[in-house]
Amino acid sequence: MVDVEHRIRSFFAGRLDDAAHYGSEYEHLWQAASRASAGGKRLRPMLVLVAHGGVHGSDAAQAVELAVAFELLHTAFLLHDDVIDGDEVRRGVPNVVGEFGLDARRRAISEARAEQWGRTAAILAGDLLIHYSQSLVARLDVDRDTRIALLDVLDRGVFVTAAGELADVSYSVGVTEPRLTDALDMTERKTAAYSFEAPLIAGAILGGADRECIRALGEYGRLLGVAFQLGDDLLGTFGAEGVTGKSVVNDLREGKETPLVSFARATDEWARVDDLFGRPDLSPKEADRLRSALELCGARAFVESLVADHVRDAVAALDVAAVPAGLASQLEGFAGTCIGRAS
Amino acid sequence: MVDVEHRIRSFFAGRLDDAAHYGSEYEHLWQAASRASAGGKRLRPMLVLVAHGGVHGSDAAQAVELAVAFELLHTAFLLHDDVIDGDEVRRGVPNVVGEFGLDARRRAISEARAEQWGRTAAILAGDLLIHYSQSLVARLDVDRDTRIALLDVLDRGVFVTAAGELADVSYSVGVTEPRLTDALDMTERKTAAYSFEAPLIAGAILGGADRECIRALGEYGRLLGVAFQLGDDLLGTFGAEGVTGKSVVNDLREGKETPLVSFARATDEWARVDDLFGRPDLSPKEADRLRSALELCGARAFVESLVADHVRDAVAALDVAAVPAGLASQLEGFAGTCIGRAS
Repeated sequence: MVDVEHRIRSFFAGRLDDAAHYGSEYEHLWQAASRASAGGKRLRPMLVLVAHGGVHGSDAAQAVELAVAFELLHTAFLLHDDVIDGDEVRRGVPNVVGEFGLDARRRAISEARAEQWGRTAAILAGDLLIHYSQSLVARLDVDRDTRIALLDVLDRGVFVTAAGELADVSYSVGVTEPRLTDALDMTERKTAAYSFEAPLIAGAILGGADRECIRALGEYGRLLGVAFQLGDDLLGTFGAEGVTGKSVVNDLREGKETPLVSFARATDEWARVDDLFGRPDLSPKEADRLRSALELCGARAFVESLVADHVRDAVAALDVAAVPAGLASQLEGFAGTCIGRAS
Repeated sequence: MVDVEHRIRSFFAGRLDDAAHYGSEYEHLWQAASRASAGGKRLRPMLVLVAHGGVHGSDAAQAVELAVAFELLHTAFLLHDDVIDGDEVRRGVPNVVGEFGLDARRRAISEARAEQWGRTAAILAGDLLIHYSQSLVARLDVDRDTRIALLDVLDRGVFVTAAGELADVSYSVGVTEPRLTDALDMTERKTAAYSFEAPLIAGAILGGADRECIRALGEYGRLLGVAFQLGDDLLGTFGAEGVTGKSVVNDLREGKETPLVSFARATDEWARVDDLFGRPDLSPKEADRLRSALELCGARAFVESLVADHVRDAVAALDVAAVPAGLASQLEGFAGTCIGRAS
């Protein structure tokens, strides 16, 4: 993972050098993109490297390139997510939208134009990273069949993620009212596909794994990705803020249509609190009422059992001869940390 | 060019088939992306094919793939441009932002959420096309050196275009006040780089052209691209609306900081009309006053002469032994049409 950090830094350093020839605003844009990429957990690169190493892949340098490609794509999605949601803050500090917006406001530029400036910066930064992510994959020094197989994985990852993101927004703006199965599909598409399934499959392909092993890793990734996101949804409502650093009212204030909420909606309990859900000014006490309702109606227990089921099934998917024992055991250990998160 | 149209249609048809498995909204997104790509002039694909054929390239099928990659990238930039500018209409009909926004408003969804829905659709559609554009290039069946050379061209094209777009917006929101040279740089970066220079260079590389020929075509593309955009700026202010189908008040109402305006700003004439420039409610009579000022101060004549100079220099750049005579003559003819546009 040291190599991944090093390569991410060298990628941004190279672009920053070039950007200096195109004016200070463009340099600023690349600095902001670099900061947006810093400090992440590097989950996706880690999965690429674990899969590649676990199938005894021998091309460590190419694996790092592939790992970095996934991280750039992830940063791009975060940047565009913030534009879509109109957020100006991420992890407590101004994001690219917020940073450029603040800069414009300091220059006494009108609010509408300051917003446009912030939006522009984040859209362009994301566009650049989507492009460069794919460029890194295209440049891999591998045989044509491997390259095409990797491109297929990336194509599918991006295609499915966009479907999931569109569905997520369609629920939150109210274009679609999700049933529980819709919310679960959305979770799988928006998170599991590009964050778990694709990095594992891609790492294994690069490492020369056979079809059966790739299929098993994909299945594990899909299931674990759903468990991970469901666990995240639980933490976002019932977590210990001091421990996780994650707000436990934001999801309720935003009216995030998670499977947790979809389950609750189908119960009588929800009707009594529905008017609170999605209120931007939700008080701590009102948030408690929503949490109680989610507990009483069985939604919390249901999602907790879903997490456990998905983790169990994910681990079971690894139990085929084609998956090397060392890799299976490593991924089983990783799956355990997801349960810990959720409880 | 028939092959290009056919391939663009088959690309979107393939994605539409897949999208059908991910819900009607996602199908709708791909239909909208396909419509956004339809009806363009296919300038960039044409330049790829002209350059490839002109250097006696023999791989027509790969040239079509490369040509389509440039067109998808162009569509992506248009889609994101509209989000950046907050436009809901393009060529007189609702664009993707507008179409999705209208759909939400019809369902009685609040204005802020309808805007979010429109913005989301256009951002995701653009993201998908940026990704797939690069995926097509990555999949080309060419030797590694050629692939890397093409990827370098695309990387630079996207990098420089983003710099130009950022500069353009920085002028229109007022973060930067452009001097004439800044406005000319912006024109070269935002339009010439990916619309003229990159397609010509890429087509020539794929066709196996030598370094000197590629250099000459790049120079021609850069100069002609600037001439083309300057001509477009002139048409956008002085054109015959009935003939061009292009509004001659929009640029003045938006306060578009073109080189035409940058030149005028440095003259005394402009101070008398500066308060009119950028007024969203500019009347036809006020637009006439702005036009008169642009004529009187010499800005129009200056930009017209710039166009002529750039076209002449572009054609002169082709006058090297490395550029095949047939290609030079074809590109000279094409350059002539740019002069026609501007006058």
